[in-house]
Amino acid sequence: MAHYGYFNGTIAPVDQLAVGISDLGLLRGYGLFDYFLTYNGRPFQWDWYWERFQNSASRMHLPLPLGKEEAYGILMKLLERSDLTDTAFRFVMTGGYSADSISVERPNLLILTEAIHPVPPIQYEKGIKVILDEYVREMAEVKSTDYKRVILMAEAIRAAGASDLLYQKGGEISELSRSNFFLVKSSRIVTPDRHILHGITRRTILKLAQRDFQVEERPVLLSELYDADEAFTTSSTKKVLPITQIGELTIGDGHVGPISRALLEQFNEFIEAW
Amino acid sequence: MAHYGYFNGTIAPVDQLAVGISDLGLLRGYGLFDYFLTYNGRPFQWDWYWERFQNSASRMHLPLPLGKEEAYGILMKLLERSDLTDTAFRFVMTGGYSADSISVERPNLLILTEAIHPVPPIQYEKGIKVILDEYVREMAEVKSTDYKRVILMAEAIRAAGASDLLYQKGGEISELSRSNFFLVKSSRIVTPDRHILHGITRRTILKLAQRDFQVEERPVLLSELYDADEAFTTSSTKKVLPITQIGELTIGDGHVGPISRALLEQFNEFIEAW
Repeated sequence: MAHYGYFNGTIAPVDQLAVGISDLGLLRGYGLFDYFLTYNGRPFQWDWYWERFQNSASRMHLPLPLGKEEAYGILMKLLERSDLTDTAFRFVMTGGYSADSISVERPNLLILTEAIHPVPPIQYEKGIKVILDEYVREMAEVKSTDYKRVILMAEAIRAAGASDLLYQKGGEISELSRSNFFLVKSSRIVTPDRHILHGITRRTILKLAQRDFQVEERPVLLSELYDADEAFTTSSTKKVLPITQIGELTIGDGHVGPISRALLEQFNEFIEAW
Repeated sequence: MAHYGYFNGTIAPVDQLAVGISDLGLLRGYGLFDYFLTYNGRPFQWDWYWERFQNSASRMHLPLPLGKEEAYGILMKLLERSDLTDTAFRFVMTGGYSADSISVERPNLLILTEAIHPVPPIQYEKGIKVILDEYVREMAEVKSTDYKRVILMAEAIRAAGASDLLYQKGGEISELSRSNFFLVKSSRIVTPDRHILHGITRRTILKLAQRDFQVEERPVLLSELYDADEAFTTSSTKKVLPITQIGELTIGDGHVGPISRALLEQFNEFIEAW
């Protein structure tokens, strides 16, 4: 069972795909990406992902080499070729090959199938620990390939026995390194609305949560962590993952709270029926 | 006359070199580089470049896969194989191939020979125009592959009839997108000392300039542009390149000044004798 990928018109096993060394993603960090899963053989929230990928490309001034229907056709072909029921898809689009190592000529587009790495069940039962990091991502709303910070901080995360970083700048919380942040206070659900990547799982959760809870999208301060009842993070792979410790601070009573649990259940029902 | 490159132990023509798609430089922007020229067949300021590359690697927590002597041997082999008297060398070192698309295992190291792209002579005679950009590079002192900003701003630079960006943040000047900044005021030579890449050409120029001029390395404010007599930028390819216009502001009388000219001459003499 090989994973297949698409690169500028060609489909091949991913371990046979390679990018020439004049690529501006490699040489200059000029690249964007997206990542999503399929459920029951269907790309989850495809319309929203494509819309975001288009927006990111436009913000990076990169023309898309293919349209939505064509891209969907490639996804289906890759899924079939890889002989999988479900997969993770990764889009990577760079500034392409450049004769002078700086000017964009024509983007390079990769669409890859990848193994899904689910979160260990214990993390849903116990919640995770994250550590605060004074940082805000440049152009956070664009899903660029710029993830230097979390790789740079890998050792600090490990040393703290934590799973990830929670970015804050000047006392304002934005997001985790690859997922969004929520807190729960007196049954209200609060999530930052700026300096963040607008996650598709975040968007899905907000929609589900609005049926039962009051939801606030607004700037969130560090000081609000002190009287939060619950905290959690959302992403394609993490779904709704409880956060029970932030640095030295225990959130609520230190156990996974009922609202985090309820939202995870609702999300799991939603994807089962996708 | 092909350009040759080295990739993890193998030497091949650069157009045959390719990097697998799980590389963290490509997927996550986790890479660093360096760039220098040879003069008379000898790598210019090799000791300083190697020292900087080592420092960048250490700051990025990437172990160097080879030592200084071995690296120098590769440079000489590439130069010989490419059948060139002089060349540009580019080092690119990424986080390497990653099974989970985020963890560093073993860096990938590329050493490439490239054609030198000299600055058109007219720019030395007339000076260049740059435009101001409110920006400061993350980890500016590390020569990472993060050059998103200047690629993103390419259209704005072109539209202004300019050659490059001059970064400033909160009224403090740091550097151009790929070169250092100097100004001349009453025969004193002033250059920013923080939020910059410590350029090797900058270091060489400071050394040469100290023989004849008073030199100040310190924070430089935007307001100092208004009564500057001259301005110039330094890099491997630009050498000492006069800047005669910054946005709408003409520097001095708008012509290339005598000190910029003198430093360029001294630099050219220095490299001729290298």
